[in-house]
Amino acid sequence: MIHYIEVKSKTRTELIDITPEIIEMVRKTAVKDGVCHLFTLHTTAGITINEGADPAVRSDICRFLEKQVPNAPWFTHSEGNSDSHIKSMLTGTSQSIFIENGKLLLGTWQSVFFCEFDGPRTRRIAVKIAAEN
Amino acid sequence: MIHYIEVKSKTRTELIDITPEIIEMVRKTAVKDGVCHLFTLHTTAGITINEGADPAVRSDICRFLEKQVPNAPWFTHSEGNSDSHIKSMLTGTSQSIFIENGKLLLGTWQSVFFCEFDGPRTRRIAVKIAAEN
Amino acid sequence: MIHYIEVKSKTRTELIDITPEIIEMVRKTAVKDGVCHLFTLHTTAGITINEGADPAVRSDICRFLEKQVPNAPWFTHSEGNSDSHIKSMLTGTSQSIFIENGKLLLGTWQSVFFCEFDGPRTRRIAVKIAAEN
Repeated sequence: MIHYIEVKSKTRTELIDITPEIIEMVRKTAVKDGVCHLFTLHTTAGITINEGADPAVRSDICRFLEKQVPNAPWFTHSEGNSDSHIKSMLTGTSQSIFIENGKLLLGTWQSVFFCEFDGPRTRRIAVKIAAEN
Repeated sequence: MIHYIEVKSKTRTELIDITPEIIEMVRKTAVKDGVCHLFTLHTTAGITINEGADPAVRSDICRFLEKQVPNAPWFTHSEGNSDSHIKSMLTGTSQSIFIENGKLLLGTWQSVFFCEFDGPRTRRIAVKIAAEN
Repeated sequence: MIHYIEVKSKTRTELIDITPEIIEMVRKTAVKDGVCHLFTLHTTAGITINEGADPAVRSDICRFLEKQVPNAPWFTHSEGNSDSHIKSMLTGTSQSIFIENGKLLLGTWQSVFFCEFDGPRTRRIAVKIAAEN
């Protein structure tokens, strides 16, 4: 079964913490051990795992990507958001996290972030919770 | 069981759409629900998921990577293709896509691309289709 | 069951080959076919698959990342290691490798590397070996 998380971004470039939604989904399925696969269905967005404690990490990541991948004059994609597609490629569009004793296995400082690179928009992340054999 | 997709690239840097081959493989295995894992066996190539509708997205991504990762004079790898290895690291060498009701779950604009960073060559992508428990 | 690989890095930025440890783990579990999932529990580290034969590839990758992601004066994260968090995002924090006939399926030149971006430290990589249905 595939579940969905819906996210509403508010700005063009933004990292949104979706850890609570994933934890809740894992809890509901009552899977004891397995893998939680996340996959975003968009081509100008990503999913990444990084520090959730200090919001400055998120904003430094966003600002770095904006500087590193500016909207170059030589881009040929007519929609004018090639930079968003490139940021999506650099970040990656999926993550797989372990489930142990019914809980998501994350390091002390790890949170899961949906990465918006062409917002504001309403977005969807597909979630598949694969139970152990 | 592991299946293989063979790809022949024509230039040094190129994104090749392999979505039809993957869809056909999933169809043949008749798996209803599960995960399709893709893994490239090369160190100067990658696999990415991005927009397939406008070919300009692909070429903008390639041109960005060529500009961002030029063949720097300070590279020490004797084969002279450190830039290809770095592009492979930035893109990633694998992808995992959900299967739902016998179909690959991709967003409206998503296609799966083999990324050639040191072509032209003949390349192989390993595919494992894991059925749900 | 989740296993752990412990790694002790010696410098700030370093790629450490963990292929032998993973091969040994797969051998011990005696799983014939499946997927070996790797996940680092840290936010200033990564896991990547690239050439293991020539150590120059590793050092070129490290030097590229140091140049591409310097410790910028505009970073706001108070711990002063935003560059490490960004390198972790670019590399990715997990990998999934196929197991075929009891062996890890890697290409001729592929090795698995733990990427240290804020060392020296003692680090942990979680490993889950999922047997085929």
